[in-house]
Amino acid sequence: MNIPELIKANHERKYFFHFNENPKAYPENLQAEGLTLFQKKLNTNYTLPAENKNNAFYGEEISPYMQTGLGIHYPKTDVGTLVANAEKSFDVWRKLSVDQRFNILYETLEKISHRFFEIAYATMHTSGQSFLMSFQASGPHACDRALEVMTTAYEQLTYFPDEVEWVKNMGKFDLKLQKTYKPVAKGVGLVIGCSTFPTWNTVPGLYADLITGNSAIVKPHPKAVYPIAIFIEEMQKVFMAHNLPAEIVQLAIDSVENPITKQLAEHDSIKLIDYTGGNYFGNYIESLGKTCFTEKAGINSVILDSCENLDSVAQNLAFSVSLYSGQMCTAPQNIYISGDGVKTPARHFTYQEVVDKITASIRGLMENPKAAAPTLGAIQNDQTMSRIAEKVRSNSATAIQLDVKVENAEFSGARIQTPTIITAEAGESGKYLEECFGPLIFIVKTANREESLSIVRDSARTHGAITCLAYTTDKDFMHQVEDEMNGVFTPVSFNFTGAAFVNQHAAFSDLHVSGGNPSGNATFTNTEFINKRYIWIGNRYML
Amino acid sequence: MNIPELIKANHERKYFFHFNENPKAYPENLQAEGLTLFQKKLNTNYTLPAENKNNAFYGEEISPYMQTGLGIHYPKTDVGTLVANAEKSFDVWRKLSVDQRFNILYETLEKISHRFFEIAYATMHTSGQSFLMSFQASGPHACDRALEVMTTAYEQLTYFPDEVEWVKNMGKFDLKLQKTYKPVAKGVGLVIGCSTFPTWNTVPGLYADLITGNSAIVKPHPKAVYPIAIFIEEMQKVFMAHNLPAEIVQLAIDSVENPITKQLAEHDSIKLIDYTGGNYFGNYIESLGKTCFTEKAGINSVILDSCENLDSVAQNLAFSVSLYSGQMCTAPQNIYISGDGVKTPARHFTYQEVVDKITASIRGLMENPKAAAPTLGAIQNDQTMSRIAEKVRSNSATAIQLDVKVENAEFSGARIQTPTIITAEAGESGKYLEECFGPLIFIVKTANREESLSIVRDSARTHGAITCLAYTTDKDFMHQVEDEMNGVFTPVSFNFTGAAFVNQHAAFSDLHVSGGNPSGNATFTNTEFINKRYIWIGNRYML
Repeated sequence: MNIPELIKANHERKYFFHFNENPKAYPENLQAEGLTLFQKKLNTNYTLPAENKNNAFYGEEISPYMQTGLGIHYPKTDVGTLVANAEKSFDVWRKLSVDQRFNILYETLEKISHRFFEIAYATMHTSGQSFLMSFQASGPHACDRALEVMTTAYEQLTYFPDEVEWVKNMGKFDLKLQKTYKPVAKGVGLVIGCSTFPTWNTVPGLYADLITGNSAIVKPHPKAVYPIAIFIEEMQKVFMAHNLPAEIVQLAIDSVENPITKQLAEHDSIKLIDYTGGNYFGNYIESLGKTCFTEKAGINSVILDSCENLDSVAQNLAFSVSLYSGQMCTAPQNIYISGDGVKTPARHFTYQEVVDKITASIRGLMENPKAAAPTLGAIQNDQTMSRIAEKVRSNSATAIQLDVKVENAEFSGARIQTPTIITAEAGESGKYLEECFGPLIFIVKTANREESLSIVRDSARTHGAITCLAYTTDKDFMHQVEDEMNGVFTPVSFNFTGAAFVNQHAAFSDLHVSGGNPSGNATFTNTEFINKRYIWIGNRYML
Repeated sequence: MNIPELIKANHERKYFFHFNENPKAYPENLQAEGLTLFQKKLNTNYTLPAENKNNAFYGEEISPYMQTGLGIHYPKTDVGTLVANAEKSFDVWRKLSVDQRFNILYETLEKISHRFFEIAYATMHTSGQSFLMSFQASGPHACDRALEVMTTAYEQLTYFPDEVEWVKNMGKFDLKLQKTYKPVAKGVGLVIGCSTFPTWNTVPGLYADLITGNSAIVKPHPKAVYPIAIFIEEMQKVFMAHNLPAEIVQLAIDSVENPITKQLAEHDSIKLIDYTGGNYFGNYIESLGKTCFTEKAGINSVILDSCENLDSVAQNLAFSVSLYSGQMCTAPQNIYISGDGVKTPARHFTYQEVVDKITASIRGLMENPKAAAPTLGAIQNDQTMSRIAEKVRSNSATAIQLDVKVENAEFSGARIQTPTIITAEAGESGKYLEECFGPLIFIVKTANREESLSIVRDSARTHGAITCLAYTTDKDFMHQVEDEMNGVFTPVSFNFTGAAFVNQHAAFSDLHVSGGNPSGNATFTNTEFINKRYIWIGNRYML
């Protein structure tokens, strides 16, 4: 771990990973050990180093694979105590140097990396992600995102020198002043997690708060606590080993029925809020007037104009829309195709042929017994099932339901749902212009590619978009798509086939959420994600 | 002009000036020429390169020195036309490279520097600043601030590479993508100026908008248009010389009676707002939910605990409170002194002795015929006179009015007012805990230095503070003041005597306004002042 090298890598944006994403790269026994640790944790109280003696314990997680409760109960601390602890520990933590904080936080990542397999099982049985995605997203990818944040922050926090002798020639004499520059942390941060990516979406804000000298309270989704509890446990242990208060980071537990998030968010002492989740609550967070970083939802679109090979495109789309059953914030939802169809060098495909090809590709993936279950994972919660079912019911006339039953060999009770395709005319915007989280996509027939682009651009501006995927072999149209979509602050991925999927955003290379459209106001990780968490103060001393 | 050297200087924070602040360093004839240009402009229409043919002309500036109208009328364009022009020119300007924009903007500064003397007279006869302050603040200092903004922005806008080939080893093959990174400007910026520093406070936001690719509309205070009109004229000429639309920057003219600022600020197409002025309107600007950068008002405090030489301290304070008659946002207003008085190595001074010494120093300065008038300048407007008079009247029992008449040898009709000192007990916070813009200070008697600090800290947190000045020879107390004041995001200047004045904030060295307390939400110039004006977009292309 070499900070200047990390800073260089962060600027270069080439692929870089510090924590290996391949579970097979780790000692063979670790997976079995992780499973054992996971199984031992079921139906127990999860104790944390910072636990108060008189804590109640509470938990309500349900495995989307087993559809039974995990029975793990976490220490439940009241809001007043959490905030008081956070303020006390802030007053210690803020005084450490940037280097001290970097080294201590790096040590927490190392310790966390020893528990990647348990974290994978914890993620799998809360989020419904497949084992591989659980391992990668919640372990190495999350830790790489944390390291990216720390690296960006290290550079920003040392932007000005600690002190300087300032000399101004005044003609007959020199005026000399000592000037110091200090990044002063804002106070206590609240990090609000989501149920589908319980560490990947939480860790950037958490480490951004901590590296800049703030203390943090993590309020995970009550249905997805376990993965981030492991992070917090390891972090608290490291803090204590350095004779620091464990409460520099704390876990806040609530229930779906009695949430405490608003009470925390509105507390005067909470100065920073990181939020991942739905738009309604996200807009409320933004309305509080505090420094906040939101990742909400958007409608991600695909413009399919022309391509080299339609089969490759259909396969790529099939995987992207099926991966984790469309429960990724980066998953495409609406595919726009001109009524004239799609040009390829081989031949011209009619609109209906393209719809059929996409449908066939998804069906093919679902009929592949080795690929289907690991691609889909499981549906995180019942509400997604019923919301999708309702949407399909109300659009039954144009809904293409795949008559395929996907089984998970290991978990016969897994909550599985294959993707449904609903076709729509461009004019029927009421049908397709809302976010439908889960295994549901729309294919929208437009007058021409210009109309496709126009709808996609307006959709991004109005409803937000985290990603946009475009297929075109026409350079001019490519530039037009890029310019117009970038103008509404939406990044575009062009002509992705093979192993390139629009869903994936790599640390140290891809910015995640632009912060410029309604899908969120922040980015993993630009300098603004760091700099809003502290204030530069310059003091001056007469010499 | 060497960009890497500028970036280095910006990081180093040592004194640096690019535009010479000494009028004597310029060819001797320039001052007389500037005066002639100023005089010729009186009672004429000020035409601008971007002027519309059918513009009405309007102006209501009054010289605080002559107390007569300048009679200069500026082209008045309606809001709809201004915004439409700004959007059209944005679409051209945004497409230039960062280097192109930097070079063109640098050229504008050079052209502006040829008019520093006319700008000085224009500033003097709108703001009421002395000639020297007018020259320095509106000319070289403003241009240095602009250059600091451009330098910070250049580094930020090149933070990520333009493009990179990203290679991820997938085991049996490499996945290759081309990734590009683009800072995408937000659109049209509105820059709202103030009457006391018509260019120094306007230029940072204006150049920050432009260097990041946005177009800008400048809405100066109707009583202080002339100085910034010269800037805009020179900028428009340079744009046109490069075959760019002059309307990349536009002047918006209104009147005190019929302001158009709200109409502009609330316009959908205005994406960025920079504002300098009072808190009431500043809070309204912040409430609009747009990206905004505000410098409002605060109460700047002095803690006088102990010192080496009380005479030097009293002289320093006398100058700081008298400079431009307390119309600087950085001027000290409240001086807190323990009822026990002030310790010095020579002897202990009682509270009353200290009050007398400060009063005597201010009187001494006012009685110095060479120093008094140039230090005070003139009062920018009548309302400041009446507000101060009312405050003095209602506190007449403890108001110390200096029985000195200061005359301006050149302008017998100058609006001059010597500072008044009002003494108060710590308990009388209703008396002193509000901003009193202009030549009025309070000396507050506290129980001890700890109470002084406590009031000053709470005052900064609640009412805001741009500066804080502290005098103490006790290292422990110095650290305590620093820690507590920095904790409410207020910078402290310690033990300033001689030529070091708390009022002065130098480009490339001093941050201006912290952005962390109610005196404003932004800083000249940190990276946040730049980065909020554009969005990083990363596109990806299959290779």
